[in-house]
Amino acid sequence: MKALLVVAHGSRRSASNDEVRMLCERLQEEKAGKEFAIVRAGFLELAEPSIPEGIEQCIQLGADQVVVLPYFLSAGRHASEDIPAGVEKARKSHPHIAIHLAPYLGSAPGIAGLLLALAEGCEGDDGSTG
Amino acid sequence: MKALLVVAHGSRRSASNDEVRMLCERLQEEKAGKEFAIVRAGFLELAEPSIPEGIEQCIQLGADQVVVLPYFLSAGRHASEDIPAGVEKARKSHPHIAIHLAPYLGSAPGIAGLLLALAEGCEGDDGSTG
Repeated sequence: MKALLVVAHGSRRSASNDEVRMLCERLQEEKAGKEFAIVRAGFLELAEPSIPEGIEQCIQLGADQVVVLPYFLSAGRHASEDIPAGVEKARKSHPHIAIHLAPYLGSAPGIAGLLLALAEGCEGDDGSTG
Repeated sequence: MKALLVVAHGSRRSASNDEVRMLCERLQEEKAGKEFAIVRAGFLELAEPSIPEGIEQCIQLGADQVVVLPYFLSAGRHASEDIPAGVEKARKSHPHIAIHLAPYLGSAPGIAGLLLALAEGCEGDDGSTG
């Protein structure tokens, strides 16, 4: 059984953390069913679960494969060092589980198209009142 | 002539700012040509141009419509207050220019599909070596 752990930075503002959690719920319900039986949110700091805790939760739910995806827009220290370190730690604790690290969100080629769709969709929404 | 200003937070790490600038260049070259003649990056802090400066640049390049798009993943204070404040400031300086504020990136319905595509694509990439 495959799990997807979407790892965000984590915020002092709980609504921002909940936004990531809700995205994961939506992913699990609407989209990921075929590929990922489990979709969970994890956080680098300021919120729970941590990356190793989130991976642990996926395993306890029955996952034997976990894909960790950095919900980050740039390839900074968090995406390039801190998250890989958390993944490595979990791999050592669970050598029998395949733990993959996906590219960070900002590296997705589809980001450009998504931005353009948002930009095109907004015209007229606030133009007459702004 | 329409312009798109993609507004990121800005980072002390110049490579992260350049990543946004390169995304905008790519957008202008590959995708946006039809809709947006000008695509530029702007920053809330720690990098230049600021939002009003970025809008100013677009206008000087000939834009009479500017769409400002927050390159943010959550609806925090930056996306909900600081960026709208920068846009409002620019509207007052340029009452003859239509300045639209697009939804922030994280609110795009397509984010879920993008995450799933990244997650599905990565399996096997590091599973055998990790």
